[in-house]
Amino acid sequence: QDPNEVPPPPPVVHYRMNNVTTSSQPIENRESVLILTPLAKFYSQYWDNLLALSYPHDLISLGFIIPKGREGNEATRQLQDRITKTQAPSNKKHRFASITILRQDDEPPTAQSESERHALSHQKVRRAAMSRARNSLLFTTLGPTTSWVLWLDADVIETPPSLIQDLASHDKPIIVPNCMQRYWNKDKGAEDVRPYDFNSWQDSPTALGLAEKMGPDEILLEGYAEMATYRSLMAYMGEPTGDAKKIVDLDGVGGTALLVKAEVHRDGAMFPPFPFYHLIETEGFAKMARRLGWKSFGLPNFYVYHYNE
Amino acid sequence: QDPNEVPPPPPVVHYRMNNVTTSSQPIENRESVLILTPLAKFYSQYWDNLLALSYPHDLISLGFIIPKGREGNEATRQLQDRITKTQAPSNKKHRFASITILRQDDEPPTAQSESERHALSHQKVRRAAMSRARNSLLFTTLGPTTSWVLWLDADVIETPPSLIQDLASHDKPIIVPNCMQRYWNKDKGAEDVRPYDFNSWQDSPTALGLAEKMGPDEILLEGYAEMATYRSLMAYMGEPTGDAKKIVDLDGVGGTALLVKAEVHRDGAMFPPFPFYHLIETEGFAKMARRLGWKSFGLPNFYVYHYNE
Ligand SMILES: Nc1nc2c(ncn2[C@@H]2O[C@H](COP(=O)(O)OP(=O)(O)O)[C@@H](O)[C@H]2O)c(=O)[nH]1
Ligand SMILES: Nc1nc2c(ncn2[C@@H]2O[C@H](COP(=O)(O)OP(=O)(O)O)[C@@H](O)[C@H]2O)c(=O)[nH]1
Ligand SMILES: [Mn+2]
Ligand SMILES: [Mn+2]
Repeated sequence: QDPNEVPPPPPVVHYRMNNVTTSSQPIENRESVLILTPLAKFYSQYWDNLLALSYPHDLISLGFIIPKGREGNEATRQLQDRITKTQAPSNKKHRFASITILRQDDEPPTAQSESERHALSHQKVRRAAMSRARNSLLFTTLGPTTSWVLWLDADVIETPPSLIQDLASHDKPIIVPNCMQRYWNKDKGAEDVRPYDFNSWQDSPTALGLAEKMGPDEILLEGYAEMATYRSLMAYMGEPTGDAKKIVDLDGVGGTALLVKAEVHRDGAMFPPFPFYHLIETEGFAKMARRLGWKSFGLPNFYVYHYNE
Repeated sequence: QDPNEVPPPPPVVHYRMNNVTTSSQPIENRESVLILTPLAKFYSQYWDNLLALSYPHDLISLGFIIPKGREGNEATRQLQDRITKTQAPSNKKHRFASITILRQDDEPPTAQSESERHALSHQKVRRAAMSRARNSLLFTTLGPTTSWVLWLDADVIETPPSLIQDLASHDKPIIVPNCMQRYWNKDKGAEDVRPYDFNSWQDSPTALGLAEKMGPDEILLEGYAEMATYRSLMAYMGEPTGDAKKIVDLDGVGGTALLVKAEVHRDGAMFPPFPFYHLIETEGFAKMARRLGWKSFGLPNFYVYHYNE
């Protein structure tokens, strides 16, 4: 390159927000999807499922946020290994539009075993940290041309290839599948399935009453016997031969897999790390979106599966 | 270009968040600044001031959000005229790193004359719309390498060239200068200066008491006789020969000119279009940032000036 050559002027880019559609026909309308994953541990089945997505990969961007420290370094290395293969020039047909990896400033606040994470006493601090990680990822990767954001946890290891189209086909601002977990049922002596994510729910008078009596910094948590909310949990709404398209209203949502119209986030809906109507993280997000005029929905018979440690 | 040539692989970008510093020495540390402006009407003095900023322009990105409609079209045209000259390849030394212009889906909710806008009855709807515009701009332009966000209204037409360095030198999460307005003082028969932005304040027991008695959807507004809050307004804290470096704590901030560490936004601090502790927009932002652990500060003797219609 000629050192005296005048470089091209820096970019000035115009975007008309009404050209960024979100519709039930996202492929036909060439709608961009941003898949966002907070990632503390890498599972190869997660990546296999991303690769198997039938949504056009040139319309998909990926964003990851990974904690500092030894575990985060290991997860980054494993992720980078798979990325190098997927994004190779020779893999033109299957590679993704772009990939962003953020390395956090901090390590996870609590140990990462399933039972430790889920201890009630750890939830507030852990979910506040998760909220900040999700917000950092969201605020720095969402672009003016993104139509949809798919939140997908790194330990969701079974999803259908048509996940994006299936969820988008309902054309809802916020929609969430039912996240289950496979396990060995000792009593039956057989493989079985149980609910995993209890954050997708319809509110109850009991929960609202509990919230009303709480101090400003207290939060409601779901799935703890110590705190019976009597909410209707989507986790228990699945029917053995139910219609996968069956849809229900929700007041709280989980984030293991969660499709959001980008304009919901653009309006300001984020993951509150502080109690917001006594809710935090993804449940607080659903409430905040509601305050902005956007409703949440769930698909009780549409399943994705969480890893079992 | 050879049509058979394999294009380069799509970008995979790694960012270490702890490399993105925000310090009192932003130039020496090559810290990126994103200047964000909601723009309904274009003033050439606004652009003149941007051009006169002594902060290295290659570290400055600009983002605009402009409403739909005839007025928005006109503002876009005027802005684009100035951009074309500023970003010309021949203007290498002064041009900015990048410029993003978002055109909104909607028109402003109320008429745009100063007195109409400021009518108490219009404030809630107008400031909710402003919040959504600010959020859209923020969520889509903030990048992983941004260190600082400078919010600057399009009708702030007098600012010092060292604005960014001066504000950043205090190394505070959120800092706001005192926004005044020049006017013709009939009594004195002379040019004079009066306070313009009443949104930068320290809370008062009266305001907190009013808020406590409010319904969940009511908001507190500042600068209205109908609603005496007895807050300490920074607008009235300026001293004729006061030190420009004098700094005060604030509980609410205005957005005419406002410097924010990018990590405050990344943590999730946005402009609530809904009542948040009975506050909205920039005042709600300060409260939300506080809930996230970030404090706001003001410079009562450091002045910027708002246009006078
Ligand atoms: N960036 C980041 N990701 C995390 C952190 N802790 C957990 N994760 C990831 O966030 C998602 C949800 O966390 P997880 O611990 O599985 O939550 P649970 O399944 O609800 O108990 C998973 O993809 C984790 O790998 C963290 O501190 N930082
Ligand atoms: N994008 C956008 N900008 C707006 C809208 N209304 C006002 N603005 C701009 O937002 C800033 C603040 O609005 P302004 O009406 O001046 O507020 P005030 O000075 O507090 O009365 C100014 O830069 C306006 O040009 C709107 O509906 N959309
Ligand atoms: Mn998990
Ligand atoms: Mn103004």
